[in-house]
Amino acid sequence: MFTIAVDVMGGDLGPRVAFRACATVLQNHPDLRLILPLETSLHIDAQKALSRFSDRVLIKPCQSHIDMADKPARALRQGLSSSMGVAIQAHASGDAQGVLSVGNTGALMILSKRLLGTLGGIDRPALATQIPTRKQPLLMMDLGANLEMSPKQLAQLGLLAISWYRARGIMKPSIALLNIGKESNKGPEDIREAGKLLHRAAPECYAGFAEGDDVFNGDLHALICNGFAGNIALKTTEGLADWLTTMMADELSNSKSLRWLIPLWRHTIKRIEKRISPARHGGAMLLGVCGHVAKTHGKSDEKTIKYALEYLVKQTKTADQARLQSEFDRLQRGLNSPE
Amino acid sequence: MFTIAVDVMGGDLGPRVAFRACATVLQNHPDLRLILPLETSLHIDAQKALSRFSDRVLIKPCQSHIDMADKPARALRQGLSSSMGVAIQAHASGDAQGVLSVGNTGALMILSKRLLGTLGGIDRPALATQIPTRKQPLLMMDLGANLEMSPKQLAQLGLLAISWYRARGIMKPSIALLNIGKESNKGPEDIREAGKLLHRAAPECYAGFAEGDDVFNGDLHALICNGFAGNIALKTTEGLADWLTTMMADELSNSKSLRWLIPLWRHTIKRIEKRISPARHGGAMLLGVCGHVAKTHGKSDEKTIKYALEYLVKQTKTADQARLQSEFDRLQRGLNSPE
Repeated sequence: MFTIAVDVMGGDLGPRVAFRACATVLQNHPDLRLILPLETSLHIDAQKALSRFSDRVLIKPCQSHIDMADKPARALRQGLSSSMGVAIQAHASGDAQGVLSVGNTGALMILSKRLLGTLGGIDRPALATQIPTRKQPLLMMDLGANLEMSPKQLAQLGLLAISWYRARGIMKPSIALLNIGKESNKGPEDIREAGKLLHRAAPECYAGFAEGDDVFNGDLHALICNGFAGNIALKTTEGLADWLTTMMADELSNSKSLRWLIPLWRHTIKRIEKRISPARHGGAMLLGVCGHVAKTHGKSDEKTIKYALEYLVKQTKTADQARLQSEFDRLQRGLNSPE
Repeated sequence: MFTIAVDVMGGDLGPRVAFRACATVLQNHPDLRLILPLETSLHIDAQKALSRFSDRVLIKPCQSHIDMADKPARALRQGLSSSMGVAIQAHASGDAQGVLSVGNTGALMILSKRLLGTLGGIDRPALATQIPTRKQPLLMMDLGANLEMSPKQLAQLGLLAISWYRARGIMKPSIALLNIGKESNKGPEDIREAGKLLHRAAPECYAGFAEGDDVFNGDLHALICNGFAGNIALKTTEGLADWLTTMMADELSNSKSLRWLIPLWRHTIKRIEKRISPARHGGAMLLGVCGHVAKTHGKSDEKTIKYALEYLVKQTKTADQARLQSEFDRLQRGLNSPE
């Protein structure tokens, strides 16, 4: 058996949509158990929604939950008795092999750092997600946890990405820094400096700078940037993908000769959405903490939570966390060694 | 009559593709004249390619051209006798009402500043483009000229965008700052500070922060960001748009029941590409200089140059440059006045 702790209390749409997502994922994975920290008022609802899986769902009482609007300070004060705190503690104690939260990102960051600890050398964990591309998925990080980063922090993020892939058996992932030009003299000073550090610490994996239009090529395994750039890039593409799929549907409805194709076309649009959807609906991972922590955004609906939970199950099953730590430690020494 | 100076010498594909683009645009605009600064070796080619419009094309001799790889210092040394320098001088002297260059962006920036001057209060011009959205086009700036900007420089860019719209008769454009959250406490310090300045100087136009997924909504007239963020956002969406249109074509060819639709579908794809293409193929404007200066990227093909030239013709005809300057001066005083 295999256990994930799910904190469903902080989402905008309420925990009930999450119960339905949990039921689907439990159905798909007969070896999966879930720990659900819930305030008492929700226990009966949860039991009803998950009654078919009662032997694989453990409801844990908690006293509060952290709202999206709550300041991180509140997370520290009320954290341990909140649904999020109880979920992370279940992972820290070994009862669960991973945590998914639909809640406040800042609070998740603080509580994960405190209860799970971070990899040596990482000050603040980063948010990462794998986005689909023309070929292999691309691990993009940071997506908003660290708005500004020093060259060394950017380089550490690169080494973390390499370690993440090595923990999954991919020994020579190709990683790049997001920049506004490919030549080594392009872009801001801190990115150029980070490039030098990565070239020194991991020359076999570092592929130099990549530009925005390289994101979907599929030639890279990971793309490293500060949280501001990553958030902007990801959200802008989400906006465009939404618009383009609407536009295609409109094109068909407005055309007399094509309108009758809509039923056929709907099927194709569904398949395209499915191909690009893990990026748009799936969650983000908190990398740099000692554990498997993932989050979905506050507006997550049933589909989003289901994707994120499926993804976390897969990641947790296929990755060797001890390997990630040892690979990262080894690469870090290369970063810190004198030239 | 109405004249544009076109510098076609610096592009990667050579000047001949530009001659064809010029011919199409001359055909579409019977009141348009072009000034083409060209090295002597190209005069005969140009005369042949544009023979139908010989009464509306003035070929001006120049002694050199600035390559894409040239350092800006070279632009200053050889600038005035280069094709780019001759084109900008034609605008500065009033012989042309606008300039389009297929050449080096850094050199265009330096020579435009020197020969045309900048609006009072603007240190460095910005690159801007209008991208299509669900509703009205969105003026996005900066796109790469200024990688980092102070709060005051960001705010000036916002005022420049407002002035740009007012010079076109739109008195209350809605402008926003690109950020990673909508709340006023989100994002980096410099953006929050710029927000305060814009709120003070232009409360009737400033709409607060916008996120990446708002870019294509069409609710805004202008979106302001530093050149790093703007470049990343624009190029990432270009990459996704390319991939999505390929993916749709692939979906059809791979489906037995849909394959026969490809001829019909090709028509729809073309129309979608046309709707989104001004952003992908059109040029960028250099805003903040005293004049109408536009550029296309070095890899520009015939279609790209044609779009950019058409766009410049339209912008130059519809905008009142004196009005832009006076609006900007007035707004700037609001920015500089004590609180």
